[in-house]
Amino acid sequence: MERRCRKISELKDIVFQPEGRRANVQARVSILKAAKLAGADLISICGGKGSCGKCRVVVEEREKVGPPTKAEEDLLTPDELSAGYRLACQASIKGSLTVRIPEESRTGKQRLQVEGIESPVGLEPLVRKYFVQLPKPTLGDPRSDLDRLLEELRKRYDIKNLKAEYSVVKTLPSVLRKAIWEVTVTIFNGDKIIDVEPGDTTDRIFGYAVDIGTTKLAGYLLDLNTGKVIAVEPLMNPQIPFGEDVITRITYAMKGSKALMELQTVVVDGINRILEDLCDRVDVDPGEVYEMTAVGNTAMHHLFLNIYPRYLALSPFPPVVREGVNVDAKEVGVKINPNGSVYVLPVIAGFVGADNVAVILATEIYKKDELCMALDIGTNTEVVLGNKEYMLACSCASGPAFEGAHIKHGMRAASGAIEKVTMDPKSLEVKYKTVDDAKPCGICGSAIVDIPAELLKAGIIDVAGKINRDLDSSRLREKEGVLEFVLAWKEESSIGQDIVITQEDLREIQLAKAAIHTGTVTLMKEARVKEEDIDVVFIAGAFGSYIAPENARIIGMYPEVPLKKVNVVGNAAGTGARMALVSKTARKNTEKISKKVKYIELANEPNFKNELMNSYYIPYADLSRYPRTSRLLRRLGKYPKKPIPKFK
Amino acid sequence: MERRCRKISELKDIVFQPEGRRANVQARVSILKAAKLAGADLISICGGKGSCGKCRVVVEEREKVGPPTKAEEDLLTPDELSAGYRLACQASIKGSLTVRIPEESRTGKQRLQVEGIESPVGLEPLVRKYFVQLPKPTLGDPRSDLDRLLEELRKRYDIKNLKAEYSVVKTLPSVLRKAIWEVTVTIFNGDKIIDVEPGDTTDRIFGYAVDIGTTKLAGYLLDLNTGKVIAVEPLMNPQIPFGEDVITRITYAMKGSKALMELQTVVVDGINRILEDLCDRVDVDPGEVYEMTAVGNTAMHHLFLNIYPRYLALSPFPPVVREGVNVDAKEVGVKINPNGSVYVLPVIAGFVGADNVAVILATEIYKKDELCMALDIGTNTEVVLGNKEYMLACSCASGPAFEGAHIKHGMRAASGAIEKVTMDPKSLEVKYKTVDDAKPCGICGSAIVDIPAELLKAGIIDVAGKINRDLDSSRLREKEGVLEFVLAWKEESSIGQDIVITQEDLREIQLAKAAIHTGTVTLMKEARVKEEDIDVVFIAGAFGSYIAPENARIIGMYPEVPLKKVNVVGNAAGTGARMALVSKTARKNTEKISKKVKYIELANEPNFKNELMNSYYIPYADLSRYPRTSRLLRRLGKYPKKPIPKFK
Repeated sequence: MERRCRKISELKDIVFQPEGRRANVQARVSILKAAKLAGADLISICGGKGSCGKCRVVVEEREKVGPPTKAEEDLLTPDELSAGYRLACQASIKGSLTVRIPEESRTGKQRLQVEGIESPVGLEPLVRKYFVQLPKPTLGDPRSDLDRLLEELRKRYDIKNLKAEYSVVKTLPSVLRKAIWEVTVTIFNGDKIIDVEPGDTTDRIFGYAVDIGTTKLAGYLLDLNTGKVIAVEPLMNPQIPFGEDVITRITYAMKGSKALMELQTVVVDGINRILEDLCDRVDVDPGEVYEMTAVGNTAMHHLFLNIYPRYLALSPFPPVVREGVNVDAKEVGVKINPNGSVYVLPVIAGFVGADNVAVILATEIYKKDELCMALDIGTNTEVVLGNKEYMLACSCASGPAFEGAHIKHGMRAASGAIEKVTMDPKSLEVKYKTVDDAKPCGICGSAIVDIPAELLKAGIIDVAGKINRDLDSSRLREKEGVLEFVLAWKEESSIGQDIVITQEDLREIQLAKAAIHTGTVTLMKEARVKEEDIDVVFIAGAFGSYIAPENARIIGMYPEVPLKKVNVVGNAAGTGARMALVSKTARKNTEKISKKVKYIELANEPNFKNELMNSYYIPYADLSRYPRTSRLLRRLGKYPKKPIPKFK
Repeated sequence: MERRCRKISELKDIVFQPEGRRANVQARVSILKAAKLAGADLISICGGKGSCGKCRVVVEEREKVGPPTKAEEDLLTPDELSAGYRLACQASIKGSLTVRIPEESRTGKQRLQVEGIESPVGLEPLVRKYFVQLPKPTLGDPRSDLDRLLEELRKRYDIKNLKAEYSVVKTLPSVLRKAIWEVTVTIFNGDKIIDVEPGDTTDRIFGYAVDIGTTKLAGYLLDLNTGKVIAVEPLMNPQIPFGEDVITRITYAMKGSKALMELQTVVVDGINRILEDLCDRVDVDPGEVYEMTAVGNTAMHHLFLNIYPRYLALSPFPPVVREGVNVDAKEVGVKINPNGSVYVLPVIAGFVGADNVAVILATEIYKKDELCMALDIGTNTEVVLGNKEYMLACSCASGPAFEGAHIKHGMRAASGAIEKVTMDPKSLEVKYKTVDDAKPCGICGSAIVDIPAELLKAGIIDVAGKINRDLDSSRLREKEGVLEFVLAWKEESSIGQDIVITQEDLREIQLAKAAIHTGTVTLMKEARVKEEDIDVVFIAGAFGSYIAPENARIIGMYPEVPLKKVNVVGNAAGTGARMALVSKTARKNTEKISKKVKYIELANEPNFKNELMNSYYIPYADLSRYPRTSRLLRRLGKYPKKPIPKFK
């Protein structure tokens, strides 16, 4: 006992403020690792490599941590270092201490888009309940308990060829007798008894649909008697502390099966936490939830299923499994009914996941006569082009710029984020709107789309995205050799400094939008269609719901089609997950979609790099394909005077 | 630590001789309980109720156990008590001590019949292996690992609609790459991938069939590439210490789920122990064993599956499940391949189990034009009558007399057991044969059938089974008011006393055979057939293989048919289990058999008690139905002079 106490006394006690979370760790571990253990809210984009510089924390008691590393000296200014700023992934713990996580290093209470379009779908859930009253056994009728049940189900509901789960068989004799032979039977997929309960509980049957996003989880509780959503809840993906993007998480999982299991466990914990909250709110017992469906990109899909994701990150990026996976809830640790199951929708390829299958299902592209394009915008943006005849899909490494990462004042759509920006092309004055109308503290995705469009229209940048240094505006200035434009002055902001957009930020945005645009033009080329052939553009994804479609078009995020053809569909992946939950036919269709969609590997396309360079222009090197934007720029006198050099 | 040591020092250390097994138990537990814990070989027929008197042990240090109970005073003689004899279930432990288990209280190394007839059956196991060589992923072919595998299986072997076990999917990426894309796939039932191994292992595929008898387990290891048995091994059912018969074990299981689990665990441990031995002997890895089939009576079936068996013991005795049960091996704890499964054959009724379905399968009664009767003789004897048109079955509570229980010198077929007895009808001299030709120490089942037949032919007993006290023979004597006949003198025996058969023993044997006979005549009456209509009588069961069919017929164990119609088939239940293992068709037939057989509840038959009384006579109250035996008795001058009173 005494030895154990001594051991514990060697551990360091780390407190994270302002949340007050605590962790006990060995000396020499990093503050980031301690933050993960404590469950503290701390951004880490590169996953602890010391390259993103986002996990900034403040340490007052400097002697309790190791000296600054080379990475910190590169990424923090001398002022910041002397003010106690450290990178959590670099600072090694020497003694018990208190760490302050400043606002900019927190993910915060983000606005999480969980709504999506509702697609009409017939109510035909895979799980159904049936009430039966059984004749008691007698010497003249000594049939087995199960035969008695099966024959009554056949007689009364014409259900044949049923099997019973082994665990149901085990409890059957006592349940039947306790219930005095009146029970409700829950049947999965028309052929498997997964529960037998006393009395008539046919009005209590629920399902759970989850969209496992890289950044957020969205959980939906549905009443399977009506097919309606009865409660919705989002949660930040608890895997974020292990890295913000899929590649970082895959790299983490590659450390070994323990690390993989760690990622699986935290996401399942999150899924269970949402479930518990949802159930609490509408007075449902988790045992009354009989099925769950899940969507997510292929990496999230593999990590959720505890499938080694290494090869998703290695060319040619094959997934381990493409088909829909049906697995016992208890095998993955999801705490719905113990005999319930989880259906994970099929994926298309290593970088086009179940979420994209769900988007195709929800938008019904696979059924349409019209030619459709769908963009599901995120860290990876999936583009689909097609209709009921054919479908092409690709994945674009758009990166986290639209989520605020790699942008100097970028942030998620939390309170105080600038979400809308307009500029007067003459005075160059700026108007903005923030989330919750709070004092601005950063810029979130929708404004990140607005800014280059507004800057272009105002002539502050040219079609190459270059800031015109000759403009006369107090908002324009140079700092450490980099041009920047002030969006909000220090006095207006809540962070005590000007909120700016820099030339470097613009490059990041251009890279992101170019990646997406390359996907759209590559698919169009592959399908041999032009802008005018496209009948509908669906913009999906949480971020998609908030952007101004016109500005997105001006910056060349998608092909130039009339705005009336643009359809913002919100979290369509979530919609697809719900459809697959309530409809057997919808679920079958996901398998068809997954098989039918042809995956185009962009990196494999001969002209890929040239397209990417051309797409880097705002909106595009070939302005003839953007006649509306061209007209607008001409009207504003901002149409480029010299022809844009095209890469071929 | 010190506290823990003090705790242990309070436990009593019990040593069981001659095996030298040990257990540490609390004070006040019974010696029987300690013997169970120690795994010592000690008979207990009543399961610890103090009624069978079989768990006799010798305690030298009398002060270490509590005083003799009322039950012990009833069941042990004063001489025995003063010699230190105690009933293990009654003697309460007070201190550490050594307990000697005398030979008669040990089950010994019993001769366990495991062979059975071989029925020709096509080789079509549910588990099969396929070797495939896969194309490596390329940028032009980035299919998922599983698609790659499934498509190759379709192309090369025309196998479609395959699903993969979740656990296989999880290991797939590493196995495929380690194996450099050359793997062997194990498929269950043509639609589920249960294993993927590197290289070509198609020549290594095994199955395991187990007959779970109340008394013994018989395990068979089969090569599923040939369908042949490659190793066989018996083991006493490790549930025996919990009670010798099914009712005692059911009663034990009714104590609660922990007790039920205890019974399940010990039998599964036994099954695993056999598997390990079998595999060891023929150099097979248990992981190469992909499926197991099991048969057993309905109580063994329920206990093996951890299904609450209470209602099997309560009128109208409905089983919980009649259908064949397919369950993951890991769910029941059987240590074959972790993704392997166990198929437990269907049962017919509460007292006609999967072993009987297996007997019908093995004897092919369900296919025959001829009218067949099958007797599977055991503690419960199941009788089947029928052919491909119809089948009737009943269960007869024959009790353990034929296994030596309730018979003064009864024992199992271990070394020294008298297994064959003949008597000279004139001199009344006795000839016997023992197992292993060892000095006699008791009487086993086959001799228990011989004795009443020989006694009847010699006129020592009459058709009512009554010993003729007026005979002049030194072998005939009265002890404590009970007549007995000496089979082996003290000097010949290894137990230091005469081996006798008593009037009470004869009553037990009559009860047992009457129970079986009642079953046969009841089924014949129900089917409206006579002795001459029966074309074949199958005698199945371990015990059945050793009995003299003629003596069994003389005592009226089965209807009197010519001996050439009698077919001794050994452990046909084991044969059926093996057939279901190697043949999908055979397995389907078990389900048909289970549905088709009509169960007759004997206790429900209006004339049941009268039939039982009539059957108590040797061979039967209605001698006109035993013309051959009647002729024999007439020839020997032992035909009854007065008509036998019949119960109607």
